[in-house]
Amino acid sequence: MENFSEWFHNILETADIIDSRYPIKGMSVWRPYGFQIRKHFYNYLTDLLDKDHDETLFPLLIPESELAKEGIHVKGFEDEVYWITHGGQKELNEKLALRPTSETAIYPMFSLWIRSHIDLPIKVYQKVNTFRYETKHTRPLIRVREITSFAEVHTVHSSAEEADKQVQTGIEIYKDIFDKLAIPYLISNRPVWDKFPGAEYTIAFDTIFPDGKTLQIATVHNLGQTFAKTFDITFENKEGQHEYGYQTCYGLSDRVIASLIAIHGDDKGLILPPTVAPKQVVIVPILFKKGQEEVLSKCREIKKSLEDLNIRVSIDDRDLRPGKKFFDIEQKGSPLRIELGPRDLENNKIIYVRRDNGEKSELSIDDDLPVNIKNLLNTIHDNLYDKAWAKFNESLELVEEKENLKSTTEDGKISKFYWCGDTECGKAIEEETDMDVLGIYEDLDDDTEKVCIHCGKKAKHIGSIAKTY
Amino acid sequence: MENFSEWFHNILETADIIDSRYPIKGMSVWRPYGFQIRKHFYNYLTDLLDKDHDETLFPLLIPESELAKEGIHVKGFEDEVYWITHGGQKELNEKLALRPTSETAIYPMFSLWIRSHIDLPIKVYQKVNTFRYETKHTRPLIRVREITSFAEVHTVHSSAEEADKQVQTGIEIYKDIFDKLAIPYLISNRPVWDKFPGAEYTIAFDTIFPDGKTLQIATVHNLGQTFAKTFDITFENKEGQHEYGYQTCYGLSDRVIASLIAIHGDDKGLILPPTVAPKQVVIVPILFKKGQEEVLSKCREIKKSLEDLNIRVSIDDRDLRPGKKFFDIEQKGSPLRIELGPRDLENNKIIYVRRDNGEKSELSIDDDLPVNIKNLLNTIHDNLYDKAWAKFNESLELVEEKENLKSTTEDGKISKFYWCGDTECGKAIEEETDMDVLGIYEDLDDDTEKVCIHCGKKAKHIGSIAKTY
Repeated sequence: MENFSEWFHNILETADIIDSRYPIKGMSVWRPYGFQIRKHFYNYLTDLLDKDHDETLFPLLIPESELAKEGIHVKGFEDEVYWITHGGQKELNEKLALRPTSETAIYPMFSLWIRSHIDLPIKVYQKVNTFRYETKHTRPLIRVREITSFAEVHTVHSSAEEADKQVQTGIEIYKDIFDKLAIPYLISNRPVWDKFPGAEYTIAFDTIFPDGKTLQIATVHNLGQTFAKTFDITFENKEGQHEYGYQTCYGLSDRVIASLIAIHGDDKGLILPPTVAPKQVVIVPILFKKGQEEVLSKCREIKKSLEDLNIRVSIDDRDLRPGKKFFDIEQKGSPLRIELGPRDLENNKIIYVRRDNGEKSELSIDDDLPVNIKNLLNTIHDNLYDKAWAKFNESLELVEEKENLKSTTEDGKISKFYWCGDTECGKAIEEETDMDVLGIYEDLDDDTEKVCIHCGKKAKHIGSIAKTY
Repeated sequence: MENFSEWFHNILETADIIDSRYPIKGMSVWRPYGFQIRKHFYNYLTDLLDKDHDETLFPLLIPESELAKEGIHVKGFEDEVYWITHGGQKELNEKLALRPTSETAIYPMFSLWIRSHIDLPIKVYQKVNTFRYETKHTRPLIRVREITSFAEVHTVHSSAEEADKQVQTGIEIYKDIFDKLAIPYLISNRPVWDKFPGAEYTIAFDTIFPDGKTLQIATVHNLGQTFAKTFDITFENKEGQHEYGYQTCYGLSDRVIASLIAIHGDDKGLILPPTVAPKQVVIVPILFKKGQEEVLSKCREIKKSLEDLNIRVSIDDRDLRPGKKFFDIEQKGSPLRIELGPRDLENNKIIYVRRDNGEKSELSIDDDLPVNIKNLLNTIHDNLYDKAWAKFNESLELVEEKENLKSTTEDGKISKFYWCGDTECGKAIEEETDMDVLGIYEDLDDDTEKVCIHCGKKAKHIGSIAKTY
């Protein structure tokens, strides 16, 4: 993968993920195969969130007066908001914003829904499209103007402690998701100058792309009582007093799909983790003039037995030579290919080829075949996970000398550095290196002897810095 | 249900379906319970469409130049389109429309995707939000400005015959959906003055609401080659000549959910068909001081055994008296309530109460219980279906005298009438009765002796007319 950017652009087209020729910059079409990947990702996310959150759906449009209520928040988004000014031929009385995120759509309703501590906690989520008028260079799935797959959670609690705990829950949910997709991540407490507009603090997940740039793939925010005060979200506590709610919100988007494509793929095409592969197994019958029906019938039998274990499987019975089929299956990233020809049938075995490492081997056709295949899919997942994390961990480097910071990050690494924690130092480092501080990676003990890489004063944290998307 | 409009408005609130207090007229919030109903409806629809269509997702925004390309089409929508004029503080070079429907978003891409007859047929669908700046009185789920649940199919074929056949397929799919939801319908070929802007003909499904007004709940359009010509959707046919594609599109929306609520509900609340009920069975343990644990443990055992048959079931173990729980379960419309107290446990039986007809009876707690419950749910579905269709069929009346047309439809009926088929007669009848012609219900034989109710000339069709939403 010499030129990642080109590779990424090509794979989206050749693997039938999205079509970026739509006549508006930064807005693309999900094609059928890409949509299936997105769907499996969404299904998994939904199952996970449904355990402890209620799915809801709020309107896309937000009146200007609501969006403007929370001053810090609106400042963070005002340059990126799409505005509707007309309905039909008529100018609207009030401009309507396309949600850039949904705090200002959801919280006025929370204010109506919450009366007492018994109404709390509230934990809702929605999976929606959101819009940002990006002025930077757009890239499909990475920096877009219509975020088609924004999954955002919003919670309200009756104490600060509970909200803090919910932040941890959010983090655990995202760890689970990324583990299931074999996407490695760094968790950082974002620096104050880069937290979510209106939040007390922002915990972010970043992953690293093959070109050495990091991409933010999820964030969890503790909102404190800022929005509650703006939108009058109050509850009567157990003591009968009125108190503002304590809020969190967390979300992720299309970038997760961008990441799983970018991190696992190779020059032959996609490599999909079994979790999201539209077809986890593709069976290719190797047909000769003789014995076609027997081979096909055995393929169908194997397909059925795999489906009984909820494995997503198809038979590629197109009238093409096997080589072309292998090419397609590799390009589309199906984790496992099974081949079955008349000779194999005679020997009562199938040939399989793993997409993750190209390993070719065989398995007996017997009652254990479905379970063996299921196990193989798990092995493939684990291998993708281990490979991705190994590579990721190699990309992390502790840099103790300031003059090495720039070169290390330019080598495509996330550099860890000792930091006093002051905004001034953080911003100076960003400026000198032309990189972005991801945030606090770890806090140091009070009695540490480490000193800030910039100012030389006692360090408080290990910070992280990288080239970012 | 004395005042349907009031009942409908109340039930949406009390049953936790949607919240219409959102600060934009015609846009509402899906609350958790309503969202679950919508989700089961969507899941069923998705399964059905996935058999022969590919799910995709196209951008929400459409450049003015694309929307304007098809003249007849844009005329039909121009008064209802929301326009984005600004991104951030900047005025956009070109106005962007929020899709009122997606022909003009999808067809430019079809033009890129289709080259040859081997690329056809294309059958894609998407489930999206769409927007209409309605100037008429809005009503939640019925006449809204954000249609949150628009499921639209778009197909391209290599012959007119195939497109005609696809229209029939679309009709069959919708029949299946409405049957599953026990929603009765009338299928009409819409009059020319009411067909979809740009279509050759429009087949529509209407149902009738308790207030006697009909609601259009699905439409299937044969688009001919009109859009293909506008958007240059051509293919090389088998003879090597370039030909325009033959298109259809069909869709339905939130109105389906409005209908199932309106048609089945009663004064106690919702009555949900098992297909879409978030909980198909709710178990209420009847607890006394003695034997609580035994009762609860048996409830959990029964729950597990029902879940094994994929029945959606919950235990209402809230610390409330049973009467309050029964009230809630009835309001939320769960098809079946199961009660289990210590005496029942002794007698090894459960009490069940059907929501559709209030019938109270008992079943033995044995290995057959899950299957018996499953059968009971099917019986409930069939009863809802039969009841709804019986009532619907009573609402259809053939009217032979013109002077009775108005009074019959005002009685809350759909009137069938003999019609020559001329637009002039159709529109005159609409004007005189202040009703809407739904369309052609049935064609008459050439040798019919029936005459048009308006002009007295030989009738060609049986038309249908009603008060509409």
